[in-house]
Amino acid sequence: MDNKLMLMIPGPTPVPEPVLLAQAKHPIGHRSGDFGKIMAEVTENLKWLHQTQNDVLILASSGTGAMEAGIINFLSAGDRVLVGTNGKFGERWAEVAEAYGLTVETITVDWGKPLDPQAFADRLSADSDKSIKAVIVTHSETSTGVINDLQTINGHVKAHGALMMVDAVTSLGATSVPIDEWGLDVVASGSQKGYMIPPGLGFVAVSPKAWEAYKTATLPKYYLDLGKYRKDAAKNSTPFTPPVNLFYALQEALRLMKKEGLDNIFARHARLRAATRAAVVALNLPLYAPDDCASPAITAVMPQSVDAEQVRSVMRKKYDIALAGGQDALKGKIFRIGHLGFVSDRDVLTAIAALEATLIELGAEVTSGAGVAAAAKHLIG
Amino acid sequence: MDNKLMLMIPGPTPVPEPVLLAQAKHPIGHRSGDFGKIMAEVTENLKWLHQTQNDVLILASSGTGAMEAGIINFLSAGDRVLVGTNGKFGERWAEVAEAYGLTVETITVDWGKPLDPQAFADRLSADSDKSIKAVIVTHSETSTGVINDLQTINGHVKAHGALMMVDAVTSLGATSVPIDEWGLDVVASGSQKGYMIPPGLGFVAVSPKAWEAYKTATLPKYYLDLGKYRKDAAKNSTPFTPPVNLFYALQEALRLMKKEGLDNIFARHARLRAATRAAVVALNLPLYAPDDCASPAITAVMPQSVDAEQVRSVMRKKYDIALAGGQDALKGKIFRIGHLGFVSDRDVLTAIAALEATLIELGAEVTSGAGVAAAAKHLIG
Repeated sequence: MDNKLMLMIPGPTPVPEPVLLAQAKHPIGHRSGDFGKIMAEVTENLKWLHQTQNDVLILASSGTGAMEAGIINFLSAGDRVLVGTNGKFGERWAEVAEAYGLTVETITVDWGKPLDPQAFADRLSADSDKSIKAVIVTHSETSTGVINDLQTINGHVKAHGALMMVDAVTSLGATSVPIDEWGLDVVASGSQKGYMIPPGLGFVAVSPKAWEAYKTATLPKYYLDLGKYRKDAAKNSTPFTPPVNLFYALQEALRLMKKEGLDNIFARHARLRAATRAAVVALNLPLYAPDDCASPAITAVMPQSVDAEQVRSVMRKKYDIALAGGQDALKGKIFRIGHLGFVSDRDVLTAIAALEATLIELGAEVTSGAGVAAAAKHLIG
Repeated sequence: MDNKLMLMIPGPTPVPEPVLLAQAKHPIGHRSGDFGKIMAEVTENLKWLHQTQNDVLILASSGTGAMEAGIINFLSAGDRVLVGTNGKFGERWAEVAEAYGLTVETITVDWGKPLDPQAFADRLSADSDKSIKAVIVTHSETSTGVINDLQTINGHVKAHGALMMVDAVTSLGATSVPIDEWGLDVVASGSQKGYMIPPGLGFVAVSPKAWEAYKTATLPKYYLDLGKYRKDAAKNSTPFTPPVNLFYALQEALRLMKKEGLDNIFARHARLRAATRAAVVALNLPLYAPDDCASPAITAVMPQSVDAEQVRSVMRKKYDIALAGGQDALKGKIFRIGHLGFVSDRDVLTAIAALEATLIELGAEVTSGAGVAAAAKHLIG
């Protein structure tokens, strides 16, 4: 059917009706007092979501733009940075750092495996002259559904003294990212993920230590110059025209998130992950990421007896459910189920029920009802 | 009254209801065939609006982000650039160029006056070794309501051979910017202006000659790397997550613009400018920009007998009409009437009628009805 699409991809994620309607309002002037009030409210609520008193700045950009800003504002050409790469996004941050002439070293493991915190400890403790200026880690690797052990890696970074820069694009709003408790310096994210709003806004949380580094950082920047955003945010304003209607959406979505509460949001994502993974196992499909590093936002599945793209095609055409495919080397080999943002228990039951029917249609050996039964176990109670 | 605000500012501009409703739709996946179809349609229609066969690329950014991309993608550190500055935005492009280590020379005139094309001719003809790589001009200076003589300046640039880079943020969609006919190399704009959609999208049109320069340009870039956008646009896709809902809005707005037709759109803006300026004169208010360089998008007024900010305040509080104030040195000295984008003859009559009443309330010597009568002369026919 037309107009009945259900998004189970890791972004854009589903958007609640009050948020969709909020952004359908007529724009107001961004230099007005009314806009200033929205800016003040969303900034306060962003700090709540980020569990921080640090600045949380809002850019008109995708998550990549936000992460690039998070990297380039605090470094100078030639600076040595350590980048963890175990998926498409980790690799992207290494590319960004290289594009700006940083001296990039990577700690790499195969896609689908988690970064090894000990490798960071070893590399950082060997850096006796403290020439490593920043460590860049993707918290939840959207391309593989692996969540990295940010807390442990961050402990090693703290011991060393480098800046800790985090891509939290698919972890923020899905699992706890306690910025102040852990002392994370730079945390970037994007609106079309845990925030439950359409794409178009990027967010960067910046610690006082990062602002110290900003003072001497010399990489060229203007549109992504976070100092400009900080200065204007202090006046509840923005240096460049903000996407006013997406701010309406953000205001409404953050109110909804506060109503649900952080603990409930994180518990819901953990529950959806458990239910999805149990169902996938019950349907005889191999999970791509191991249990102990499974992202609460995305479950990647690497089917053997059926074709991943055929699964996506039947799910899309027959049941109007969009699943994500694999990226780069994983293209055609995995499909990814997003359970991030405005996703309910019912949505997971729905997706699993449709997945079962799809697998049977494609000739896989599946016990009808087994996936739903396995998922439900995690939801009932 | 609440919820009855009328925007007469140079952006965000009013948004047609079908566009507001289009962007309230649920997002779809940006890697889907359905999104590809939208991308193909809007790209074709953007070329129509830009009167070009060049690439027209779409960024998730404000107009400043688009203009920065338009500058940095085609130059290397140390390159000599000539920037015309006669307002806030011309000055901004000089700042951007300086931030990236370009060798910036400016051709400056006072705010409120137009750039002198002969000054460009002189500077360019003196550059016998062709060391000036690009000339950067703001077509319609939003801060002053002055439109610069881009065609004549461009003629001198063509004779020299430098790249012609244009900020068309408040000219595109308000007056003809015939990119192919004139041979403009880089033309940047933003969604919240003539496009009649909310802010959040930036556009850059790039000529084959600029792409040649791209090959050897070495300024660092990633999120604003237009080569990535070009590569993916060829597959009806984007390198980074696009603001899907703003694409819905863009699709709808471009359809509305095509229905009205370029000539009608430009004639409407010329008519609104004439009506607004005639009314301002009839109300004994000094126009800030001279007639022969008046922007079709914005009319700036520098009142003497009443306070500009008081005019804005009464207009806003009593008649729910938002006018823009002055920027930087003009703060408090001028008010600006936007008549750009989704603005009708009726809107100008409305704004002028309210302005008359406001001026009388503030004790100005004004003949009630004189402004409306003067405006109407340009609208009746």
